[in-house]
Amino acid sequence: MEYSFASRMGGLHASAIREILKFTADPSVISFAAGNPAPEAFPKEEVERIADRILRENPIAALQYSITEGYAPLREALKADLSARLGIGRAFDELIITSGAQQAIEHCCKVLINPGDTILCENPSFVGSLNAFKSYEANLVGVDVEDDGISVEKLESALKQNPDAKLLYVIPTFQNPSGATMSLEKRRAVYRLCREHGVLILEDNPYGELRFRGTDLPTIKSMDEDGIVLYCGSFSKVLSPGLRVGYLCAPREFAQKVVVLKQVSDVHTNILAQMICHEFMTTTDFPAHLARLKEIYRHKSSLMLDEMRRQLHPRITWVEPEGGLFIWCRLPEGVNMVDFCNRAVRNKVAVVPGTAFMPHDKDRTQCFRINHSTPTDDQIRKGIALLGELSHEIL
Amino acid sequence: MEYSFASRMGGLHASAIREILKFTADPSVISFAAGNPAPEAFPKEEVERIADRILRENPIAALQYSITEGYAPLREALKADLSARLGIGRAFDELIITSGAQQAIEHCCKVLINPGDTILCENPSFVGSLNAFKSYEANLVGVDVEDDGISVEKLESALKQNPDAKLLYVIPTFQNPSGATMSLEKRRAVYRLCREHGVLILEDNPYGELRFRGTDLPTIKSMDEDGIVLYCGSFSKVLSPGLRVGYLCAPREFAQKVVVLKQVSDVHTNILAQMICHEFMTTTDFPAHLARLKEIYRHKSSLMLDEMRRQLHPRITWVEPEGGLFIWCRLPEGVNMVDFCNRAVRNKVAVVPGTAFMPHDKDRTQCFRINHSTPTDDQIRKGIALLGELSHEIL
Repeated sequence: MEYSFASRMGGLHASAIREILKFTADPSVISFAAGNPAPEAFPKEEVERIADRILRENPIAALQYSITEGYAPLREALKADLSARLGIGRAFDELIITSGAQQAIEHCCKVLINPGDTILCENPSFVGSLNAFKSYEANLVGVDVEDDGISVEKLESALKQNPDAKLLYVIPTFQNPSGATMSLEKRRAVYRLCREHGVLILEDNPYGELRFRGTDLPTIKSMDEDGIVLYCGSFSKVLSPGLRVGYLCAPREFAQKVVVLKQVSDVHTNILAQMICHEFMTTTDFPAHLARLKEIYRHKSSLMLDEMRRQLHPRITWVEPEGGLFIWCRLPEGVNMVDFCNRAVRNKVAVVPGTAFMPHDKDRTQCFRINHSTPTDDQIRKGIALLGELSHEIL
Repeated sequence: MEYSFASRMGGLHASAIREILKFTADPSVISFAAGNPAPEAFPKEEVERIADRILRENPIAALQYSITEGYAPLREALKADLSARLGIGRAFDELIITSGAQQAIEHCCKVLINPGDTILCENPSFVGSLNAFKSYEANLVGVDVEDDGISVEKLESALKQNPDAKLLYVIPTFQNPSGATMSLEKRRAVYRLCREHGVLILEDNPYGELRFRGTDLPTIKSMDEDGIVLYCGSFSKVLSPGLRVGYLCAPREFAQKVVVLKQVSDVHTNILAQMICHEFMTTTDFPAHLARLKEIYRHKSSLMLDEMRRQLHPRITWVEPEGGLFIWCRLPEGVNMVDFCNRAVRNKVAVVPGTAFMPHDKDRTQCFRINHSTPTDDQIRKGIALLGELSHEIL
């Protein structure tokens, strides 16, 4: 049988990271390629205790069909928390639960984008989102990320050159993959420019709670007086990615469209997982848990950065992130970045070539991404030593 | 802010059933409108015990990111079970886990359908699937369902009239909403006709395990020598819908495309839920559990049918289903079906007007759907009595 696939499938390939992760199935390969939370970051005992209580006291609710918008007590707890801590959520907003923030992003795109419609995004950006956009045949226009976040000048010029752009997708805090955090000034400028041009902002904030240096900045959503910001967050990095619980806070009219789509995509998000998230938020010391996470990642990132300063050739450069899971390394001009990554994995340390995060296949970069959250301390030391050897060999 | 939604949103509305279910939030309304498993059908203690063991013995695997294709041991167990019991799965097939069968259906459509492409479907059919198809702007062509399943004559003529049709969507066993089961002869004819016309078959089998009368028939997938059948199943009706675990068995090339889409829609299905399904399948007496479910539904459907024969006006007719969750009732010509349903809910018993299951808003029917699995025995008696009173009042 010859299958005749929809035209949207033409521009889609399995993520390049997946291909690299295949090498890391070899246990002798140290992986800096993933973005998994540290195993020691999971509150195993609390989740076990909470799941047991739910299934003992309220099993039918946990196992039966539920409503598409999400488990009401979790929605209320999140609304209260986002409002109190981050100033997120106005009278015109609604909050719904999604199957990870990935689903919120995919559904926002499905709600908005006709084939050929323009989405502006950071360059580089999170490959999962870029591929979700490509799956609706969006015209992706990348805007360069600087050390303090997206280039406002280039954003302004992209907005002018793409007067029909519908959406700007940004990860303002500890961006994946660049690690950059958008300055307060830039957040204000991004909001103002998008409002002026009638462009919605999709603000993705999976890492915001994982700050281990510096001070918190307001989200763009907290500035949203006009109903132009779609904000998504997730329990993946603060509790567990396996549970697949995320959320979208967006103007009600928009959120209701997402609900219609979610109804036909997975009916609702696993309800036991939603109940676990709710109980974890409301019956444990969540701030203490977050403080513990920050401590874990502060330690791991510091260790990795120390080793990098010690071991990598000085012509490899990076900006120290203030939080999140990733460090974005730049090779000097003239070095073949993809070749460097291929040699690294042959030398038993896997990193992700930066081209994986470019909006277009043809885009080039000298950068690669490394992750400090998944490897052990020992693997961090050994892996950076291997990268160091390779860097001195090549440079 | 004026939002400019994608054109695909134009044909989509929140499900009519959802609107009816709002009335059933009133506890004095007896609901025959839902399709929830009976609360007593959940193996609560086993699930509690299994979840506890997983979170005690293997918590990191249950909480960490996992692969898009699904939890490998569950995939293996399902492949073995489908092959042994149903003759499903050939060398060219692959089985992947989805977030409910709903996601399998939505993704099959996203893989195949360009706006305007034709999907043939049963008329009436499951509204969740019809809306998933509409969300990709498919051209839906309904083919009437008879007492023994889809009309083969009408299918043949629809195939001739729509030479570019890409997909036929069918629920051959205990169809939702008609309750009809496609005869063996018709299954063979459907397979043959679709092969001749180069049309893929999406076979949805959520209720197949819930037979309480008659003998099992082979699935269409078991006849698939040509790689034209996409088969989806689910744990929703045999274990728990809240867990949101379904699966797709399809030719590998097709399944791989679905995996690419799933990666950008929810990364993977909740892993704890997948592990629970696996343990439930392999460490409990699953056949005994299924036998218990059949007993529950045999009792409920018999009670409902007995009461219907006793209480409903004889001009209301139906075909007795051999399994599944629904009974499809026909009002005589001349009676306003929608008005009947509206009066029923005002009289405190909710049923679903058959128009909710028509491929097009303008399609008409004299039928309505009732469900026996969700109400208690007492609610079945009272609810049918109320419908009976109304039927004698109107006819």
